[in-house]
Amino acid sequence: MVDFSFSPHIILVKPQLGENIGMAARAMGNCGVSSLILVEPRDGWPNPAALSAAAGAEKIIQNASLWKDIPQATKKVKRIYAMTARRRSRALLEKNLAEAAQEIVENQKRGILSAVLFGPERSGLDNEMVSCADTLVHIPLEPDFSSVNLGQSVMLFCYEWRKASHGRSAENPAIEIKNIPADKEELFNFINRLEKNLEECRFFKTPEMRQETLRNLRAFFQRAQPNAQELKTLHGVITRLSSPR
Amino acid sequence: MVDFSFSPHIILVKPQLGENIGMAARAMGNCGVSSLILVEPRDGWPNPAALSAAAGAEKIIQNASLWKDIPQATKKVKRIYAMTARRRSRALLEKNLAEAAQEIVENQKRGILSAVLFGPERSGLDNEMVSCADTLVHIPLEPDFSSVNLGQSVMLFCYEWRKASHGRSAENPAIEIKNIPADKEELFNFINRLEKNLEECRFFKTPEMRQETLRNLRAFFQRAQPNAQELKTLHGVITRLSSPR
Repeated sequence: MVDFSFSPHIILVKPQLGENIGMAARAMGNCGVSSLILVEPRDGWPNPAALSAAAGAEKIIQNASLWKDIPQATKKVKRIYAMTARRRSRALLEKNLAEAAQEIVENQKRGILSAVLFGPERSGLDNEMVSCADTLVHIPLEPDFSSVNLGQSVMLFCYEWRKASHGRSAENPAIEIKNIPADKEELFNFINRLEKNLEECRFFKTPEMRQETLRNLRAFFQRAQPNAQELKTLHGVITRLSSPR
Repeated sequence: MVDFSFSPHIILVKPQLGENIGMAARAMGNCGVSSLILVEPRDGWPNPAALSAAAGAEKIIQNASLWKDIPQATKKVKRIYAMTARRRSRALLEKNLAEAAQEIVENQKRGILSAVLFGPERSGLDNEMVSCADTLVHIPLEPDFSSVNLGQSVMLFCYEWRKASHGRSAENPAIEIKNIPADKEELFNFINRLEKNLEECRFFKTPEMRQETLRNLRAFFQRAQPNAQELKTLHGVITRLSSPR
Protein backbone atom coordinates (compact mmCIF):
# COMPACT_ATOMS: atom_id res chain seq x y z
CA MET A 1 0.00 0.00 0.00
CA VAL A 2 1.19 3.48 -0.90
CA ASP A 3 1.33 5.67 2.19
CA PHE A 4 0.25 9.12 1.07
CA SER A 5 1.47 10.69 4.30
CA PHE A 6 4.92 10.10 2.78
CA SER A 7 4.08 11.80 -0.52
CA PRO A 8 7.10 13.66 -1.88
CA HIS A 9 7.96 17.27 -1.09
CA ILE A 10 8.41 19.53 -4.09
CA ILE A 11 11.30 21.91 -3.39
CA LEU A 12 11.77 24.93 -5.63
CA VAL A 13 15.29 26.23 -5.12
CA LYS A 14 15.70 29.98 -5.74
CA PRO A 15 12.68 30.23 -8.04
CA GLN A 16 12.60 33.55 -9.88
CA LEU A 17 9.04 34.18 -11.09
CA GLY A 18 5.96 34.06 -8.90
CA GLU A 19 3.96 32.92 -11.92
CA ASN A 20 6.08 29.80 -12.17
CA ILE A 21 5.67 29.05 -8.46
CA GLY A 22 1.92 29.34 -8.96
CA MET A 23 1.92 27.11 -12.03
CA ALA A 24 4.00 24.56 -10.16
CA ALA A 25 1.42 24.58 -7.36
CA ARG A 26 -1.42 24.16 -9.84
CA ALA A 27 0.36 21.19 -11.44
CA MET A 28 0.88 19.67 -7.98
CA GLY A 29 -2.81 20.09 -7.25
CA ASN A 30 -3.73 18.47 -10.57
CA CYS A 31 -1.81 15.39 -9.47
CA GLY A 32 -2.58 15.29 -5.74
CA VAL A 33 0.81 16.43 -4.45
CA SER A 34 0.44 18.98 -1.66
CA SER A 35 3.75 19.81 0.01
CA LEU A 36 5.51 22.76 -1.58
CA ILE A 37 8.79 24.04 -0.14
CA LEU A 38 10.55 27.21 -1.26
CA VAL A 39 14.23 27.90 -0.75
CA GLU A 40 15.13 31.57 -1.19
CA PRO A 41 12.51 32.67 -3.75
CA ARG A 42 14.00 35.67 -5.57
CA ASP A 43 11.05 38.02 -5.13
CA GLY A 44 10.36 37.22 -1.48
CA TRP A 45 7.38 35.47 0.04
CA PRO A 46 4.39 35.60 0.02
CA ASN A 47 4.14 36.55 -3.64
CA PRO A 48 0.77 37.67 -5.09
CA ALA A 49 1.74 36.53 -8.60
CA ALA A 50 2.18 32.99 -7.30
CA LEU A 51 -1.23 33.04 -5.69
CA SER A 52 -3.01 34.19 -8.83
CA ALA A 53 -1.21 31.73 -11.12
CA ALA A 54 -2.15 28.86 -8.80
CA ALA A 55 -5.65 28.98 -10.33
CA GLY A 56 -7.38 26.70 -7.84
CA ALA A 57 -4.34 25.51 -5.89
CA GLU A 58 -4.20 28.52 -3.56
CA LYS A 59 -4.08 26.25 -0.54
CA ILE A 60 -0.79 24.74 -1.70
CA ILE A 61 0.67 28.24 -2.03
CA GLN A 62 -0.65 29.30 1.37
CA ASN A 63 0.74 26.19 3.04
CA ALA A 64 4.13 26.41 1.33
CA SER A 65 7.05 26.49 3.73
CA LEU A 66 10.04 28.75 3.33
CA TRP A 67 13.68 27.85 4.11
CA LYS A 68 17.02 29.47 3.61
CA ASP A 69 18.89 26.48 2.22
CA ILE A 70 18.37 22.91 1.06
CA PRO A 71 19.75 21.17 4.19
CA GLN A 72 17.35 23.19 6.38
CA ALA A 73 14.47 22.31 4.05
CA THR A 74 15.19 18.59 4.05
CA LYS A 75 15.92 17.78 7.69
CA LYS A 76 13.24 15.11 7.94
CA VAL A 77 13.73 13.74 4.44
CA LYS A 78 15.58 10.51 3.69
CA ARG A 79 15.95 10.66 -0.09
CA ILE A 80 16.65 13.71 -2.23
CA TYR A 81 16.18 13.71 -5.99
CA ALA A 82 17.50 16.48 -8.23
CA MET A 83 15.74 17.29 -11.51
CA THR A 84 18.42 18.31 -13.93
CA ALA A 85 18.88 18.36 -17.68
CA ARG A 86 22.64 18.76 -17.48
CA ARG A 87 25.09 15.91 -17.44
CA ARG A 88 27.21 15.66 -14.33
CA SER A 89 30.62 14.20 -13.95
CA ARG A 90 30.15 13.18 -10.35
CA ALA A 91 29.26 9.61 -9.62
CA LEU A 92 25.65 10.07 -8.55
CA LEU A 93 22.79 7.68 -9.10
CA GLU A 94 20.83 8.61 -12.20
CA LYS A 95 17.26 7.68 -13.09
CA ASN A 96 14.84 8.74 -15.74
CA LEU A 97 11.64 10.45 -14.69
CA ALA A 98 9.34 7.42 -14.67
CA GLU A 99 11.89 5.30 -12.81
CA ALA A 100 12.40 7.99 -10.19
CA ALA A 101 8.65 8.37 -9.69
CA GLN A 102 8.33 4.62 -9.28
CA GLU A 103 11.15 4.56 -6.75
CA ILE A 104 9.60 7.39 -4.74
CA VAL A 105 6.37 5.42 -4.55
CA GLU A 106 8.35 2.39 -3.39
CA ASN A 107 9.94 4.65 -0.78
CA GLN A 108 6.47 5.65 0.41
CA LYS A 109 5.49 2.03 0.87
CA ARG A 110 8.50 1.65 3.18
CA GLY A 111 7.79 4.87 5.11
CA ILE A 112 10.66 6.75 3.46
CA LEU A 113 10.05 10.42 2.80
CA SER A 114 11.46 11.85 -0.45
CA ALA A 115 11.99 15.39 -1.73
CA VAL A 116 12.54 16.54 -5.31
CA LEU A 117 14.66 19.59 -6.07
CA PHE A 118 13.90 21.93 -8.98
CA GLY A 119 16.38 24.68 -9.82
CA PRO A 120 15.94 28.34 -10.78
CA GLU A 121 14.38 29.08 -14.18
CA ARG A 122 17.42 30.62 -15.81
CA SER A 123 20.08 28.08 -15.00
CA GLY A 124 18.60 25.06 -13.26
CA LEU A 125 20.28 23.49 -10.24
CA ASP A 126 23.95 24.38 -9.88
CA ASN A 127 26.59 21.90 -8.69
CA GLU A 128 26.36 23.06 -5.10
CA MET A 129 22.60 22.43 -5.03
CA VAL A 130 22.91 19.09 -6.82
CA SER A 131 25.46 17.93 -4.26
CA CYS A 132 22.67 17.83 -1.68
CA ALA A 133 20.89 15.12 -3.66
CA ASP A 134 21.55 11.41 -3.74
CA THR A 135 19.90 10.78 -7.11
CA LEU A 136 19.75 12.73 -10.37
CA VAL A 137 16.52 12.64 -12.34
CA HIS A 138 16.61 13.01 -16.07
CA ILE A 139 13.53 13.77 -18.18
CA PRO A 140 13.78 12.07 -21.56
CA LEU A 141 13.59 15.06 -23.93
CA GLU A 142 15.31 16.37 -27.03
CA PRO A 143 19.01 16.44 -26.17
CA ASP A 144 19.56 19.76 -27.94
CA PHE A 145 16.51 21.52 -26.48
CA SER A 146 16.05 20.21 -22.98
CA SER A 147 15.50 23.47 -21.12
CA VAL A 148 12.02 23.01 -19.64
CA ASN A 149 9.80 25.63 -18.08
CA LEU A 150 9.82 25.24 -14.28
CA GLY A 151 6.07 24.69 -13.92
CA GLN A 152 6.11 22.13 -16.72
CA SER A 153 8.98 20.28 -15.15
CA VAL A 154 7.03 20.06 -11.88
CA MET A 155 3.98 18.91 -13.87
CA LEU A 156 5.89 16.10 -15.58
CA PHE A 157 7.25 14.83 -12.29
CA CYS A 158 3.90 15.01 -10.51
CA TYR A 159 2.13 13.34 -13.45
CA GLU A 160 4.55 10.40 -13.40
CA TRP A 161 4.32 10.23 -9.62
CA ARG A 162 0.53 10.10 -9.80
CA LYS A 163 0.65 7.36 -12.42
CA ALA A 164 3.08 5.36 -10.28
CA SER A 165 1.21 5.87 -7.02
CA HIS A 166 -2.33 5.33 -8.23
CA GLY A 167 -1.61 2.22 -10.23
CA ARG A 168 -3.06 1.05 -13.45
CA SER A 169 -6.63 0.63 -12.29
CA ALA A 170 -6.97 4.07 -10.73
CA GLU A 171 -5.20 5.60 -13.68
CA ASN A 172 -8.18 5.15 -15.92
CA PRO A 173 -11.22 6.04 -13.88
CA ALA A 174 -12.90 7.51 -16.95
CA ILE A 175 -12.09 4.78 -19.42
CA GLU A 176 -15.25 2.82 -19.80
CA ILE A 177 -17.20 1.66 -22.75
CA LYS A 178 -19.89 4.25 -23.03
CA ASN A 179 -21.33 2.98 -26.24
CA ILE A 180 -23.77 0.12 -25.71
CA PRO A 181 -24.20 -1.34 -29.18
CA ALA A 182 -27.75 -2.08 -30.27
CA ASP A 183 -28.87 -5.69 -30.33
CA LYS A 184 -27.78 -7.42 -33.49
CA GLU A 185 -31.42 -7.98 -34.39
CA GLU A 186 -31.96 -4.24 -34.58
CA LEU A 187 -28.77 -3.82 -36.55
CA PHE A 188 -29.75 -6.49 -39.06
CA ASN A 189 -33.25 -5.03 -39.32
CA PHE A 190 -31.66 -1.75 -40.19
CA ILE A 191 -29.31 -3.24 -42.76
CA ASN A 192 -32.17 -5.18 -44.35
CA ARG A 193 -34.31 -2.11 -44.46
CA LEU A 194 -31.46 -0.15 -46.04
CA GLU A 195 -31.02 -2.89 -48.61
CA LYS A 196 -34.73 -2.85 -49.40
CA ASN A 197 -34.76 0.91 -49.85
CA LEU A 198 -31.73 0.74 -52.09
CA GLU A 199 -33.43 -1.91 -54.20
CA GLU A 200 -36.51 0.26 -54.50
CA CYS A 201 -34.57 3.25 -55.77
CA ARG A 202 -32.64 1.02 -58.15
CA PHE A 203 -29.30 1.65 -56.53
CA PHE A 204 -27.83 -1.68 -57.64
CA LYS A 205 -26.91 -1.85 -61.31
CA THR A 206 -25.85 -5.53 -61.47
CA PRO A 207 -26.18 -8.57 -59.16
CA GLU A 208 -22.38 -8.58 -58.65
CA MET A 209 -22.35 -4.95 -57.68
CA ARG A 210 -25.28 -5.58 -55.37
CA GLN A 211 -23.47 -8.33 -53.48
CA GLU A 212 -20.22 -6.39 -53.21
CA THR A 213 -21.92 -3.21 -52.04
CA LEU A 214 -24.03 -4.98 -49.45
CA ARG A 215 -20.97 -6.71 -48.08
CA ASN A 216 -19.24 -3.35 -47.72
CA LEU A 217 -22.23 -1.74 -46.04
CA ARG A 218 -22.61 -4.64 -43.60
CA ALA A 219 -18.93 -4.55 -42.70
CA PHE A 220 -19.12 -0.83 -42.10
CA PHE A 221 -22.18 -0.94 -39.83
CA GLN A 222 -20.88 -3.95 -37.93
CA ARG A 223 -17.63 -2.22 -37.21
CA ALA A 224 -19.28 1.06 -36.28
CA GLN A 225 -21.48 -0.69 -33.71
CA PRO A 226 -24.32 1.82 -33.66
CA ASN A 227 -26.31 2.02 -30.47
CA ALA A 228 -30.11 1.92 -30.38
CA GLN A 229 -30.48 5.69 -30.53
CA GLU A 230 -28.12 5.95 -33.46
CA LEU A 231 -30.01 3.24 -35.33
CA LYS A 232 -33.21 5.14 -34.76
CA THR A 233 -31.58 8.23 -36.23
CA LEU A 234 -30.27 6.25 -39.18
CA HIS A 235 -33.75 4.86 -39.84
CA GLY A 236 -35.04 8.42 -39.80
CA VAL A 237 -32.39 9.50 -42.27
CA ILE A 238 -33.37 6.76 -44.71
CA THR A 239 -37.05 7.46 -44.31
CA ARG A 240 -36.49 11.11 -45.03
CA LEU A 241 -34.15 10.54 -47.95
CA SER A 242 -36.42 8.00 -49.61
CA SER A 243 -39.67 9.89 -49.15
CA PRO A 244 -41.05 11.64 -52.22
CA ARG A 245 -40.00 15.30 -52.56
CA MET B 1 9.72 2.00 -37.73
CA VAL B 2 8.15 5.25 -36.58
CA ASP B 3 7.76 7.63 -39.51
CA PHE B 4 8.45 11.09 -38.12
CA SER B 5 7.06 12.75 -41.23
CA PHE B 6 3.70 11.67 -39.77
CA SER B 7 4.35 13.20 -36.34
CA PRO B 8 1.14 14.61 -34.87
CA HIS B 9 -0.11 18.15 -35.40
CA ILE B 10 -0.78 20.11 -32.22
CA ILE B 11 -3.92 22.21 -32.76
CA LEU B 12 -4.71 24.98 -30.29
CA VAL B 13 -8.35 25.91 -30.71
CA LYS B 14 -9.17 29.52 -29.81
CA PRO B 15 -6.18 29.95 -27.48
CA GLN B 16 -6.46 33.10 -25.39
CA LEU B 17 -2.99 34.03 -24.12
CA GLY B 18 0.07 34.41 -26.30
CA GLU B 19 2.21 33.26 -23.36
CA ASN B 20 0.44 29.91 -23.37
CA ILE B 21 0.91 29.51 -27.13
CA GLY B 22 4.61 30.18 -26.58
CA MET B 23 4.87 27.73 -23.70
CA ALA B 24 3.07 25.10 -25.76
CA ALA B 25 5.62 25.63 -28.55
CA ARG B 26 8.49 25.33 -26.07
CA ALA B 27 7.07 22.07 -24.73
CA MET B 28 6.70 20.77 -28.29
CA GLY B 29 10.32 21.66 -28.97
CA ASN B 30 11.41 19.90 -25.78
CA CYS B 31 9.83 16.72 -27.13
CA GLY B 32 10.61 16.99 -30.84
CA VAL B 33 7.10 17.84 -32.06
CA SER B 34 7.18 20.63 -34.65
CA SER B 35 3.80 21.20 -36.28
CA LEU B 36 1.73 23.82 -34.47
CA ILE B 37 -1.68 24.84 -35.81
CA LEU B 38 -3.76 27.70 -34.47
CA VAL B 39 -7.49 28.01 -34.93
CA GLU B 40 -8.79 31.51 -34.22
CA PRO B 41 -6.31 32.70 -31.58
CA ARG B 42 -8.10 35.38 -29.56
CA ASP B 43 -5.42 38.05 -29.79
CA GLY B 44 -4.67 37.62 -33.47
CA TRP B 45 -1.53 36.33 -35.14
CA PRO B 46 1.45 36.79 -35.07
CA ASN B 47 1.59 37.47 -31.34
CA PRO B 48 4.83 38.85 -29.81
CA ALA B 49 3.99 37.34 -26.39
CA ALA B 50 3.95 33.88 -27.96
CA LEU B 51 7.32 34.44 -29.55
CA SER B 52 8.97 35.53 -26.32
CA ALA B 53 7.46 32.70 -24.24
CA ALA B 54 8.71 30.15 -26.76
CA ALA B 55 12.19 30.53 -25.22
CA GLY B 56 14.14 28.67 -27.85
CA ALA B 57 11.24 27.30 -29.89
CA GLU B 58 10.75 30.45 -31.98
CA LYS B 59 10.88 28.41 -35.17
CA ILE B 60 7.78 26.45 -34.16
CA ILE B 61 5.95 29.74 -33.58
CA GLN B 62 7.13 31.20 -36.87
CA ASN B 63 6.08 28.09 -38.79
CA ALA B 64 2.69 27.80 -37.07
CA SER B 65 -0.23 27.75 -39.48
CA LEU B 66 -3.44 29.63 -38.91
CA TRP B 67 -6.96 28.40 -39.78
CA LYS B 68 -10.46 29.61 -39.18
CA ASP B 69 -11.99 26.33 -38.03
CA ILE B 70 -11.09 22.75 -37.15
CA PRO B 71 -12.28 21.14 -40.42
CA GLN B 72 -10.11 23.58 -42.41
CA ALA B 73 -7.15 22.83 -40.15
CA THR B 74 -7.47 19.05 -40.44
CA LYS B 75 -8.11 18.47 -44.14
CA LYS B 76 -5.14 16.14 -44.58
CA VAL B 77 -5.47 14.46 -41.21
CA LYS B 78 -6.95 10.98 -40.72
CA ARG B 79 -7.32 10.79 -36.94
CA ILE B 80 -8.35 13.59 -34.57
CA TYR B 81 -7.87 13.34 -30.83
CA ALA B 82 -9.46 15.78 -28.38
CA MET B 83 -7.80 16.53 -25.03
CA THR B 84 -10.55 17.05 -22.54
CA ALA B 85 -10.99 16.75 -18.81
CA ARG B 86 -14.77 16.77 -18.98
CA ARG B 87 -16.90 13.68 -19.26
CA ARG B 88 -18.97 13.40 -22.38
CA SER B 89 -22.22 11.60 -22.88
CA ARG B 90 -21.65 10.91 -26.56
CA ALA B 91 -20.39 7.53 -27.52
CA LEU B 92 -16.88 8.48 -28.60
CA LEU B 93 -13.77 6.40 -28.23
CA GLU B 94 -11.88 7.31 -25.06
CA LYS B 95 -8.23 6.71 -24.22
CA ASN B 96 -5.93 7.82 -21.49
CA LEU B 97 -2.95 9.95 -22.40
CA ALA B 98 -0.34 7.21 -22.62
CA GLU B 99 -2.66 4.96 -24.65
CA ALA B 100 -3.47 7.76 -27.06
CA ALA B 101 0.22 8.61 -27.51
CA GLN B 102 0.95 4.96 -28.20
CA GLU B 103 -1.88 4.77 -30.74
CA ILE B 104 -0.64 7.90 -32.52
CA VAL B 105 2.79 6.32 -32.84
CA GLU B 106 1.15 3.19 -34.25
CA ASN B 107 -0.69 5.45 -36.70
CA GLN B 108 2.65 6.93 -37.77
CA LYS B 109 4.02 3.47 -38.50
CA ARG B 110 1.07 2.95 -40.86
CA GLY B 111 1.40 6.36 -42.51
CA ILE B 112 -1.66 7.77 -40.76
CA LEU B 113 -1.45 11.44 -39.80
CA SER B 114 -3.00 12.45 -36.47
CA ALA B 115 -3.90 15.78 -34.90
CA VAL B 116 -4.55 16.59 -31.27
CA LEU B 117 -7.00 19.34 -30.28
CA PHE B 118 -6.48 21.51 -27.20
CA GLY B 119 -9.24 23.90 -26.15
CA PRO B 120 -9.21 27.49 -24.92
CA GLU B 121 -7.73 28.15 -21.47
CA ARG B 122 -10.90 29.19 -19.74
CA SER B 123 -13.27 26.45 -20.75
CA GLY B 124 -11.47 23.76 -22.71
CA LEU B 125 -12.99 22.25 -25.82
CA ASP B 126 -16.73 22.75 -26.16
CA ASN B 127 -19.10 20.11 -27.54
CA GLU B 128 -19.00 21.58 -31.03
CA MET B 129 -15.20 21.37 -31.12
CA VAL B 130 -15.14 17.88 -29.61
CA SER B 131 -17.57 16.65 -32.25
CA CYS B 132 -14.79 17.06 -34.84
CA ALA B 133 -12.71 14.42 -33.05
CA ASP B 134 -12.96 10.66 -33.27
CA THR B 135 -11.24 9.95 -29.94
CA LEU B 136 -11.27 11.65 -26.55
CA VAL B 137 -8.05 11.76 -24.58
CA HIS B 138 -8.16 11.83 -20.82
CA ILE B 139 -5.16 12.76 -18.65
CA PRO B 140 -5.24 10.78 -15.40
CA LEU B 141 -5.38 13.59 -12.82
CA GLU B 142 -7.19 14.44 -9.62
CA PRO B 143 -10.90 14.19 -10.49
CA ASP B 144 -11.78 17.28 -8.46
CA PHE B 145 -8.94 19.46 -9.79
CA SER B 146 -8.37 18.49 -13.36
CA SER B 147 -8.18 21.91 -14.97
CA VAL B 148 -4.69 21.96 -16.46
CA ASN B 149 -2.77 24.93 -17.82
CA LEU B 150 -2.77 24.82 -21.64
CA GLY B 151 1.02 24.73 -22.01
CA GLN B 152 1.27 21.96 -19.42
CA SER B 153 -1.40 19.93 -21.14
CA VAL B 154 0.55 20.19 -24.41
CA MET B 155 3.72 19.23 -22.52
CA LEU B 156 2.14 16.11 -21.02
CA PHE B 157 0.90 14.96 -24.41
CA CYS B 158 4.23 15.64 -26.16
CA TYR B 159 6.17 13.95 -23.35
CA GLU B 160 4.10 10.77 -23.63
CA TRP B 161 4.33 10.92 -27.42
CA ARG B 162 8.11 11.20 -27.22
CA LYS B 163 8.29 8.26 -24.82
CA ALA B 164 6.09 6.18 -27.11
CA SER B 165 7.89 7.13 -30.33
CA HIS B 166 11.48 6.90 -29.14
CA GLY B 167 11.13 3.59 -27.37
CA ARG B 168 12.75 2.37 -24.25
CA SER B 169 16.32 2.42 -25.46
CA ALA B 170 16.30 5.97 -26.77
CA GLU B 171 14.37 7.11 -23.73
CA ASN B 172 17.41 6.86 -21.51
CA PRO B 173 20.32 8.21 -23.47
CA ALA B 174 21.83 9.61 -20.28
CA ILE B 175 21.31 6.63 -18.02
CA GLU B 176 24.68 5.03 -17.74
CA ILE B 177 26.71 3.88 -14.84
CA LYS B 178 29.11 6.73 -14.32
CA ASN B 179 30.65 5.38 -11.19
CA ILE B 180 33.40 2.87 -11.90
CA PRO B 181 33.95 1.16 -8.58
CA ALA B 182 37.54 0.72 -7.46
CA ASP B 183 39.06 -2.74 -7.74
CA LYS B 184 38.12 -4.90 -4.81
CA GLU B 185 41.78 -5.12 -3.89
CA GLU B 186 41.89 -1.39 -3.31
CA LEU B 187 38.64 -1.56 -1.37
CA PHE B 188 39.88 -4.34 0.87
CA ASN B 189 43.18 -2.52 1.37
CA PHE B 190 41.21 0.45 2.53
CA ILE B 191 39.00 -1.56 4.88
CA ASN B 192 42.03 -3.30 6.33
CA ARG B 193 43.79 -0.04 6.79
CA LEU B 194 40.73 1.41 8.51
CA GLU B 195 40.56 -1.62 10.76
CA LYS B 196 44.23 -1.23 11.66
CA ASN B 197 43.83 2.43 12.50
CA LEU B 198 40.78 1.70 14.62
CA GLU B 199 42.76 -0.96 16.48
CA GLU B 200 45.55 1.51 17.09
CA CYS B 201 43.27 4.09 18.62
CA ARG B 202 41.56 1.41 20.70
CA PHE B 203 38.20 1.83 19.06
CA PHE B 204 37.10 -1.73 19.80
CA LYS B 205 36.12 -2.39 23.38
CA THR B 206 35.49 -6.14 23.10
CA PRO B 207 36.21 -8.86 20.52
CA GLU B 208 32.44 -9.26 19.90
CA MET B 209 32.03 -5.55 19.34
CA ARG B 210 35.05 -5.60 17.05
CA GLN B 211 33.60 -8.33 14.85
CA GLU B 212 30.17 -6.77 14.69
CA THR B 213 31.51 -3.32 13.90
CA LEU B 214 33.84 -4.55 11.20
CA ARG B 215 31.01 -6.46 9.56
CA ASN B 216 28.93 -3.28 9.52
CA LEU B 217 31.73 -1.19 8.10
CA ARG B 218 32.48 -3.74 5.39
CA ALA B 219 28.84 -3.99 4.42
CA PHE B 220 28.61 -0.23 4.18
CA PHE B 221 31.69 0.25 1.99
CA GLN B 222 30.79 -2.68 -0.22
CA ARG B 223 27.37 -1.26 -0.86
CA ALA B 224 28.67 2.26 -1.41
CA GLN B 225 31.08 1.04 -4.08
CA PRO B 226 33.62 3.86 -3.80
CA ASN B 227 35.63 4.59 -6.91
CA ALA B 228 39.42 4.94 -6.91
CA GLN B 229 39.36 8.70 -6.37
CA GLU B 230 36.92 8.39 -3.50
CA LEU B 231 39.09 5.73 -1.85
CA LYS B 232 42.07 8.02 -2.14
CA THR B 233 40.07 10.74 -0.42
CA LEU B 234 38.94 8.34 2.30
CA HIS B 235 42.53 7.28 2.90
CA GLY B 236 43.42 10.96 3.25
CA VAL B 237 40.62 11.47 5.76
CA ILE B 238 41.85 8.61 7.93
CA THR B 239 45.44 9.75 7.70
CA ARG B 240 44.47 13.21 8.79
CA LEU B 241 42.13 12.08 11.56
CA SER B 242 44.64 9.66 13.02
CA SER B 243 47.67 11.95 12.85
CA PRO B 244 48.80 13.51 16.12
CA ARG B 245 47.38 16.97 16.82
